[in-house]
Amino acid sequence: MAPGAAHDGRRRVNIVLYVDAFWSNPFDAAPYVALREKGVAFSTAIALVGDRTGVTPAIRYQAYTGLEPALQHGDFWLAESMAIIEYLEDAFPPPQWPSLFPTAVRARARARQLMSWIRMELLPLREERPSILLFYKFDEPLRPLGPLATKLARDLTTVVERLGPNPDGTLFGEPCIADVDVAFALMRLLRSGHEVPPAVAAYAEAVWRRPAVREYVEHARPPHPPRNY
Amino acid sequence: MAPGAAHDGRRRVNIVLYVDAFWSNPFDAAPYVALREKGVAFSTAIALVGDRTGVTPAIRYQAYTGLEPALQHGDFWLAESMAIIEYLEDAFPPPQWPSLFPTAVRARARARQLMSWIRMELLPLREERPSILLFYKFDEPLRPLGPLATKLARDLTTVVERLGPNPDGTLFGEPCIADVDVAFALMRLLRSGHEVPPAVAAYAEAVWRRPAVREYVEHARPPHPPRNY
Repeated sequence: MAPGAAHDGRRRVNIVLYVDAFWSNPFDAAPYVALREKGVAFSTAIALVGDRTGVTPAIRYQAYTGLEPALQHGDFWLAESMAIIEYLEDAFPPPQWPSLFPTAVRARARARQLMSWIRMELLPLREERPSILLFYKFDEPLRPLGPLATKLARDLTTVVERLGPNPDGTLFGEPCIADVDVAFALMRLLRSGHEVPPAVAAYAEAVWRRPAVREYVEHARPPHPPRNY
Repeated sequence: MAPGAAHDGRRRVNIVLYVDAFWSNPFDAAPYVALREKGVAFSTAIALVGDRTGVTPAIRYQAYTGLEPALQHGDFWLAESMAIIEYLEDAFPPPQWPSLFPTAVRARARARQLMSWIRMELLPLREERPSILLFYKFDEPLRPLGPLATKLARDLTTVVERLGPNPDGTLFGEPCIADVDVAFALMRLLRSGHEVPPAVAAYAEAVWRRPAVREYVEHARPPHPPRNY
C-alpha cells in the first residue's frame, strides 16, 4: 500500500480511495469516476490485492468488511463499491454537486439494477474475461467462452441494446455511473474479439472516452501482474 | 406463477412483488418488508423458481434481467433486490412515507455496505446453510461448515457485534431494511446450532419478531420443495 498523489493540492484532502494496485478493477473504477465527476478533492492509495498484501489489518478493521475498494472520509471508513457510490451521492448531493444517477426515479432504478446485475450475475463471464486483459498483454491465447459465459455475454449485449444505447456514451440520455460498469463489461468482450452489435460497441467506446474513465484507464501501472493474479 | 392476494382491498393495487414460491429467499424478504413498512398497497405473486418454472418469458422480458424478486409498478418492471429497495425509497420517499434506511448519511452507508457484503461475499456460507432450512425439515443431518464458511460465519458475527446490536432489533438505533438481511444470515446460523454471541443472537431474534418479517416468515408455503432445490 502506498500513498497516491492528491488530485487537488489547493484544498485539504480528507478523502482517500483505496484501489487495486494494478488499476484493473471495474468496481474500483466506478467509485474513482464518481469522486472525479463529483469534483471533490481526493487521493488514491493502492492496495496490493494481487500480491495478497491487500490493505493493512488496521484499515480492514476500520472498514469492517472487504479489502478494496475502500473509502476513507475523515474518520469514516467504508467498503463495498455500491455502498461507496451511494454514500458519495448522499454526502455530496445534487444539485450542489453533479448527480451520479439519472434524475428520473425509474431511470435511477434501472441504473442500479444494471449495477447489481453486473456485480452479482455476470461473475462467470468476468472470470473468463477479467479486466486485467484490458491493461496487460498475456502470451496465452484466450480460450473460447464456455456455455454459461456465452449466454451471459449475449444477455449483456441484448439488455444494453434494448435499453437504447446512445453514441454519446449514455444509456439514460445523461451520464450515469452505471455506464462505467456497463462499459467495462462490454470492453472486456470488445477487446477480446467478441462480436458486439455496432450501436452497443459505439456506446461502450464513447463511455471509454469519458475523461474520468480515461484517467482511470490510463493511470500508471506497476509491471506485469503475477501469473496467478 | 399464481396471483397472490391484495394486501389492501380498498385501494387500487398497481404494485406486485414476484417472490419465490417457497417463501425462503432473504432477498425476496427484504423488498417484501420494505413494501409492508412503507405502507403501500401491493400484492405478491409467486414465481416457481425451485420448480424451474420461474416467471413467464414475458415478465422476464419486461424486467430485462433476473427472475425473482421482481417488482411491477404499473407499467414499470424492475429486478434485483437492492435496486427494488432503493426504488421503493425513491418512489415513496420520506418524510411522507417511512424511511427504509437510517437518517444519518454514514449509518445509511454502513447499512448499504452490509447489504452488498451479505449479497456478494457471504454466498459460500449461504450455500452451506440455505434459508430453506429455516422453513422446511430435512432428514439428512447438516454437515459441519467448511473452512471458508466457518471464516465467513465468524466475520458475520464479529461485524455485527462490533456495530453494537441492540436488543430491540436495531443496529443503527432505528429500524433499517439492512436488519432484515442481517437477521436472515444470523438466523440460518442460530437455527442450525451455530454458537452466536448472546447480544448478536438477541438482536437477530428481535428482528425476527418485527411484524413485517413475521408476515414473510409465517406466510403459507407449498409442500416440501424438491430435493434438488
